[in-house]
Amino acid sequence: MDIEKANQETVERMMEARPVLIGLGKALDVIPGMEENLLLHAGPPITWERASGPMRGAITGALIFEGKAKDMKSAQQLVESGEIKLEPCHHHQAVGPMAGVTSPSMSVYILENKTHGNTAYSNLNEGYGKVLRYGAYSEDVLKKLRWMENVMAPLLKEAIESSDGIDIRALLAESLHMGDEGHNRNKAGSILFTAKLAPLITRITADNQAAADVLTFMADNALTFLNPVMASCKAMSDAAQGIEGSTIVSVMARNGTDFGIRVSGLGDRWFTAPVPTPRGLYFPGYSESDASGDIGDSTITESAGIGGFAMASAPAIVNFVSGTPKDAINTTLEMYEITYTEHKYFTIPALDFRGTPTGMDLRKIVEKDITPRINTGIAHKEAGIGQIGAGLVRPPISLFQEALVAFAEHYQIG
Amino acid sequence: MDIEKANQETVERMMEARPVLIGLGKALDVIPGMEENLLLHAGPPITWERASGPMRGAITGALIFEGKAKDMKSAQQLVESGEIKLEPCHHHQAVGPMAGVTSPSMSVYILENKTHGNTAYSNLNEGYGKVLRYGAYSEDVLKKLRWMENVMAPLLKEAIESSDGIDIRALLAESLHMGDEGHNRNKAGSILFTAKLAPLITRITADNQAAADVLTFMADNALTFLNPVMASCKAMSDAAQGIEGSTIVSVMARNGTDFGIRVSGLGDRWFTAPVPTPRGLYFPGYSESDASGDIGDSTITESAGIGGFAMASAPAIVNFVSGTPKDAINTTLEMYEITYTEHKYFTIPALDFRGTPTGMDLRKIVEKDITPRINTGIAHKEAGIGQIGAGLVRPPISLFQEALVAFAEHYQIG
Repeated sequence: MDIEKANQETVERMMEARPVLIGLGKALDVIPGMEENLLLHAGPPITWERASGPMRGAITGALIFEGKAKDMKSAQQLVESGEIKLEPCHHHQAVGPMAGVTSPSMSVYILENKTHGNTAYSNLNEGYGKVLRYGAYSEDVLKKLRWMENVMAPLLKEAIESSDGIDIRALLAESLHMGDEGHNRNKAGSILFTAKLAPLITRITADNQAAADVLTFMADNALTFLNPVMASCKAMSDAAQGIEGSTIVSVMARNGTDFGIRVSGLGDRWFTAPVPTPRGLYFPGYSESDASGDIGDSTITESAGIGGFAMASAPAIVNFVSGTPKDAINTTLEMYEITYTEHKYFTIPALDFRGTPTGMDLRKIVEKDITPRINTGIAHKEAGIGQIGAGLVRPPISLFQEALVAFAEHYQIG
Repeated sequence: MDIEKANQETVERMMEARPVLIGLGKALDVIPGMEENLLLHAGPPITWERASGPMRGAITGALIFEGKAKDMKSAQQLVESGEIKLEPCHHHQAVGPMAGVTSPSMSVYILENKTHGNTAYSNLNEGYGKVLRYGAYSEDVLKKLRWMENVMAPLLKEAIESSDGIDIRALLAESLHMGDEGHNRNKAGSILFTAKLAPLITRITADNQAAADVLTFMADNALTFLNPVMASCKAMSDAAQGIEGSTIVSVMARNGTDFGIRVSGLGDRWFTAPVPTPRGLYFPGYSESDASGDIGDSTITESAGIGGFAMASAPAIVNFVSGTPKDAINTTLEMYEITYTEHKYFTIPALDFRGTPTGMDLRKIVEKDITPRINTGIAHKEAGIGQIGAGLVRPPISLFQEALVAFAEHYQIG
């Protein structure tokens, strides 16, 4: 077995994947295997019993949004009875930030990888503050979700469908030259994306006031671009999944309780360990003792060679996640130690246009005892509250050690 | 006389100026002292006889646009006879990129400095390629100018007037955290500006197709933001002009033949010397032997502490103007040597959020023999052709030596 060749093929497929935004649709209508009584969530599989506060809050909010529950108690009853099933987004070609809860009638972006033909999905970003993905589910949270579903989604759908598709990889590459890292800083990407959609929306709308409201919402939300970026990274990761003999870690994802990884050469198997708590900067009035464990599928960005791995592109992010611009450079430099290649299309001007560190190699992580660096938002540990900060986190090394042992066993090495 | 105190006051006024875009209007209607038979141009005063190719081309195009000339010969006749007068933009609270030619019926942005009350003006940006400001004046150049005047300007005017004003200093500060330097790289600023205007335009338009065309034009033109930025810098510079005893260079401007500077403590007097030719990267098929001498009022950006001075913010610009990201950092570091202060509001993440070098001190320039660094576009030396590259340039040291001697004489020093 030639691991080098397998890894080379893995990263080639990851980098050559070219995800284009081609549409928008209700999860039930477009996500493979989606069902009326199913909720998708971030990270590896989870039960209500083991779910974190923000995950429970988001499940509750989604079931209220669907008209199936009226409060957390009835939501819990539906899930524990099995009437409502929980499955990872990742099992359905999808990803979602933070709790990542996606219910049947929510709209999702549809990304098509024009190189390899696979598709990927992600829900719409709600902005900052009290939002479902951070576990809030009060009436104002639901009101915003309904506005997004009834006003924003139809406009976006028609606008996107009126275009030839929006090349997210190209916009992302551009945004990395504009101070973004694609995970916690998507300021440039969000306005690039908004500016790209603005003429399309204006051209097709029958309600200019609504269109103006949607454009304001998108332009003011520096995370508007995060969800299409995540779906794009999922499309890249899926294209690189299942390569015989590959030691490349193709997925990292957290559900607030467990941190899970997948390895390209080991198929769909999850390796899990308890999540750590991120360290970072907290909003006034909150501290690390209020923080939920690490949560979200957004680590698909680091898995694809951006996010924390591209932090050298985004020196201004340290105002948000802590540290200094020098730390940001060092983070990227450290990630070259554990990755297989440098990205062809994602480059970092400040490092003389060097490609971002891409394709985590299980062997290097374990051998050098260097775990991946992740930029992340921080949720309150209790349901119903929302975001309380942003920071940095690393997965437990045990995950990678366990996966490497499994790899050796699977391929009968040593 | 306390030069330190005067310089401190000068840079304080420059930095505390807060230019807000409050409207748009025809030059004849809004620019102080504008007349029906007057053309404004970049740089210090110039005559037809001494004017460069691109300046003659732009004058010709503007007079055709006004319906006053039909070709270069008739344009020349009008100017040489005195029937059409030429005066610097700078004499009318205005600035214009490259040739900077602004005629009575062209629309201009109106910037109001909310701190000190002065106003400043600049025309609309035409994008790249064959454009009036680079001396092209063919029918397609004029067609685009007419579209900008008839379709774009009325929409922009109504959209801006429907807002509370757009704080350009705030957008500029943001764009410096997104890889711009505000002069030759305004990619982030242009989409920030477009994303800010998009909902305003969509809300007020009665013609959605036209609005969509305008938004596409603005989003696709990475220099859309240059002109409001230049007018903002002019408002900052004017607020810092005429401070008794100040050695701060408040204006640098070129007309393609002469490079001119003004010093705050020496009033409206121009010091001039022949322009150098920029060095940089040329479009395929062109070389330095095709280049016009340095031209444009856009050096008002460097005069206000951005542009070449903020190049450390914009490592990706080296693809356009030549050099390496390290050179970009060094350019900014060198400019600290000749400036009086570090900007309060314009900061550079890559330099640990240090303020940009602001307020060129005549004394330091002469004493250290370090001239200002300027990023610039390069025009073809012949009229009618347009842009052929972009690069870097420094003004002749003699300008500053002469101004320092004049300063000493004026204030009877030594």
